[in-house]
Amino acid sequence: MAVRRWNGWGDDSIETALQPGALAFLHQQIGATAAPSDAALAAVLAQLPPSRLPPHPQVSTDAEARLRASFGQSLGDWLRLRFGRIGAVSDGVAWPESSAQVRELLDWASEVGAIVIPCGGATSVVGHLSPPEDPRPVLTLMMGRMRKLLSLDSTAQLARFEAGVLGPDLEAQLRAQGWMLGHYPQSFEYASLGGWVVTRSSGQQSARYGRIEQLFAGGRLETPRGTLQIPTLPASAAGPDLREWVLGSEGRLGVLTEATVRISRLPEREEFIGVFLPSWQAGEAAVRALAQARLGLSMMRLANPVETLTTLRLAGHEAQIAWLERYLAWRGCGEGKVLLMLGFSGGARQLRAMQALARPILKAQGGVSTGTLLGKKWAANRFKGVYLRNALWAQGYAVDTMETAVDWSRVPAMMAAMESAGREALAGFGERCHAYTHLSHVYAQGSSVYTTFVFRIGGDFDSAMARWKALKQGVSQAIVNQGGTISHQHGVGKDHAAYLGAEKGATGMAALQAMVDHFDPQGLLASGNLLPPATPAQPGRSGR
Amino acid sequence: MAVRRWNGWGDDSIETALQPGALAFLHQQIGATAAPSDAALAAVLAQLPPSRLPPHPQVSTDAEARLRASFGQSLGDWLRLRFGRIGAVSDGVAWPESSAQVRELLDWASEVGAIVIPCGGATSVVGHLSPPEDPRPVLTLMMGRMRKLLSLDSTAQLARFEAGVLGPDLEAQLRAQGWMLGHYPQSFEYASLGGWVVTRSSGQQSARYGRIEQLFAGGRLETPRGTLQIPTLPASAAGPDLREWVLGSEGRLGVLTEATVRISRLPEREEFIGVFLPSWQAGEAAVRALAQARLGLSMMRLANPVETLTTLRLAGHEAQIAWLERYLAWRGCGEGKVLLMLGFSGGARQLRAMQALARPILKAQGGVSTGTLLGKKWAANRFKGVYLRNALWAQGYAVDTMETAVDWSRVPAMMAAMESAGREALAGFGERCHAYTHLSHVYAQGSSVYTTFVFRIGGDFDSAMARWKALKQGVSQAIVNQGGTISHQHGVGKDHAAYLGAEKGATGMAALQAMVDHFDPQGLLASGNLLPPATPAQPGRSGR
Repeated sequence: MAVRRWNGWGDDSIETALQPGALAFLHQQIGATAAPSDAALAAVLAQLPPSRLPPHPQVSTDAEARLRASFGQSLGDWLRLRFGRIGAVSDGVAWPESSAQVRELLDWASEVGAIVIPCGGATSVVGHLSPPEDPRPVLTLMMGRMRKLLSLDSTAQLARFEAGVLGPDLEAQLRAQGWMLGHYPQSFEYASLGGWVVTRSSGQQSARYGRIEQLFAGGRLETPRGTLQIPTLPASAAGPDLREWVLGSEGRLGVLTEATVRISRLPEREEFIGVFLPSWQAGEAAVRALAQARLGLSMMRLANPVETLTTLRLAGHEAQIAWLERYLAWRGCGEGKVLLMLGFSGGARQLRAMQALARPILKAQGGVSTGTLLGKKWAANRFKGVYLRNALWAQGYAVDTMETAVDWSRVPAMMAAMESAGREALAGFGERCHAYTHLSHVYAQGSSVYTTFVFRIGGDFDSAMARWKALKQGVSQAIVNQGGTISHQHGVGKDHAAYLGAEKGATGMAALQAMVDHFDPQGLLASGNLLPPATPAQPGRSGR
Repeated sequence: MAVRRWNGWGDDSIETALQPGALAFLHQQIGATAAPSDAALAAVLAQLPPSRLPPHPQVSTDAEARLRASFGQSLGDWLRLRFGRIGAVSDGVAWPESSAQVRELLDWASEVGAIVIPCGGATSVVGHLSPPEDPRPVLTLMMGRMRKLLSLDSTAQLARFEAGVLGPDLEAQLRAQGWMLGHYPQSFEYASLGGWVVTRSSGQQSARYGRIEQLFAGGRLETPRGTLQIPTLPASAAGPDLREWVLGSEGRLGVLTEATVRISRLPEREEFIGVFLPSWQAGEAAVRALAQARLGLSMMRLANPVETLTTLRLAGHEAQIAWLERYLAWRGCGEGKVLLMLGFSGGARQLRAMQALARPILKAQGGVSTGTLLGKKWAANRFKGVYLRNALWAQGYAVDTMETAVDWSRVPAMMAAMESAGREALAGFGERCHAYTHLSHVYAQGSSVYTTFVFRIGGDFDSAMARWKALKQGVSQAIVNQGGTISHQHGVGKDHAAYLGAEKGATGMAALQAMVDHFDPQGLLASGNLLPPATPAQPGRSGR
């Protein structure tokens, strides 16, 4: 039976290997290396300290359950697991099956003074799930058993789910009735609805279906102050919108147990089209114009020249790629070319109309369409790209990604600053860093900027951790310096909390703290996410 | 020189009279009546109690300034002014010219313990501006001198304005550079940008340009806790979105002094098209299908049969209307027909594409297009309809409007409940009420429901006030009972505050109160808006 990996991405029956050409490309970019040897699960489990929680019939203190509940998918999480240096772990795990059970567990945690960390699909890449170093015991609520579709209103196009449902399960339940949500972050296969909401997730086709902020119509949050039940309304001018307090709350205000989402009929047609443009400037001008023209495309995803090159080099099929590149060069897209992936969904006539309106905008920038050829490939592998992390690790390479969003006027400087901050951070260790960027979500006002960093892991835990921390700090500081948000789609967690004040300001941070203090006066919920932990962190946690 | 009316809508050089046919129609619906005589301005000013504020160089205690600063445009405001029974008024007025002056005035108010009410264009219809009955003096900040365009970023399509700028001034400053905002509430001509933001306003073309929530990209709020500066970001997953705390804050958290808005290029073309449909069911099905098909229309505005009839009867041009109705009946739109006004904006080809996609949806419901004929009329009079309130008053009729939004499955019941609650409220006085409804803003999930009530004013202040309060309470209760929001576009103010708890819940109301208490520990800002006043209200204010 396929099992989810405990120290890597995804299902252990899925093995991804690098193409030989890909490895040669990386050797050339970063240098050759080898993977350090992984710690064994049994050895890691033997390290776990005894649970500090008193017994509770719903709480398990099984070692593997506690281990799995304590890690997400940040590179820091990986390093701790792979090298077997796990640090703080949860003291117990519960799998509530109803809002009432969540409330009971919250009340119990309050009585015994335990920190509570809600966990959806454990795909966080910013440290949401790491237990804080704290004298209090830590209880993790695994929400995965709360996965039911509770009701569906086909007139208002609303579906109410228990919040622990994972992406594929949610879509399957909707598709059985002819509906879909359309929220596809790259972590889709393991991420939960509740996690999307409380971290303000954004899916690949958010240009059509909306970010989770637009999809989340209402829900139920169990908080230490009681139940917050947010009704569904198509729009309202009645005071601040309480959905927006839940969105991005990252577990600090309560546990989301139900969420009603805005659903859509399955589209009559869906196409992804790959278009090459001769330069970054041309690509950026094209996506900006497309977004500002309000054409209704479902996706616009622009890779910069290095990401475009890396995609082509890592794809395998060298002969075909060489042929494609000769053709593109003949059409004006040679060195420095960029790949733009466009998504179109809707009725057949609507698709034709959108494509007809998009064509002159692309043509004006020298765009060369490859039709649906690359688009189909992209769609088939849309959730498989993450598995590349496993394959790269096996060759000795670490991968991290950092992302932000910024107004258009600042996009090129942001991209340059993030990439060079990553390279400089690794240069401090005498290492090279292969950095490349795409715009994953474009808006009329600006764009996300999503940069990937590939570098050699380092031979031991301390050197690997030092490289990662230097990268994280350097790039985060570059984002803040360039006026970007510390996250466009991953959330803040503990890893980015130190940078949140730069965008919220002192007055804003104090207000967020006041809201957390109001809902959670004991400081028990997801302590350390978003805002500093309720009790002072112990030494050695800074920068995690 | 044209002057703004002190006891009615708009500019006193604009006189609107009812057509003879219109008056006959109203006599038949509600009964004949006559206008009560208005109190004279001088007599009203003579009633003003002395100001309780200590002197301040920027604060005027001029009687007319204080009077004008104390009233919006709710029917309750009208009754108090027209009958000369003004109740509580502001103790002084300041016209700050900068954020620094706002801060200085806030600090001074805090020192002297004065309540502060910010005022944009004084178009509130829910009592935002009424000073609370409170032993503390009241200072009104008139924001109208803060009207400058501070910067414009044409790449990111952002414009930063001082928040006191009124609609026409804002659009004129943008149009001078080839840009527009596109936010057109019916109060557009006198309403301010800051007022739109803090009351979550929605404009007639919000389907294209967005509600103010989507247009407001960032800004500056002067609060008792310091300045909250919200940067512009195209999107963010970094914790709760602080813009959403300012939106709908109705003056309780601070004074908005600057707002950056998302602007658009002037569209190549704009068309409004009037389409008749044979029944309410057909009309509702058509707008729902249009909204759910994501076609990008700028406006969908559906009048129910009584509103359609009223529009035709009040339009004048009886012979032409009779001809039109014969034609429509021949095409299947007879008694019970409904008028749908559609807006299309964008490039010429984009318009044609949208119209081609909309046509089969309308045809499937039996829609009969009248082309741009009625649409042009509607567009020419889009801000003139409010003047009808003056004309009706002159004939002895009061007009009030109540609005909500609700999911599609509840729209028909909501419409019926609001109209009948209004009729029942007036029936309690042996009076008839002419009630009619339109959907002003439609969404995939549901719609606003906007009902107008016309009834005889009543011969004296007490009977008029009793009628209005009974109407307000009856319809508000109907909205709450049917699960609607207490406001889709007018805000909560003091008039609807008693009904806010029904949608926010006890946990939500406590959280809103905690946020107000955090930002404004003295309870000085806009006391009584949204949430109960900081000190207990005195008797006689309930239900206002």
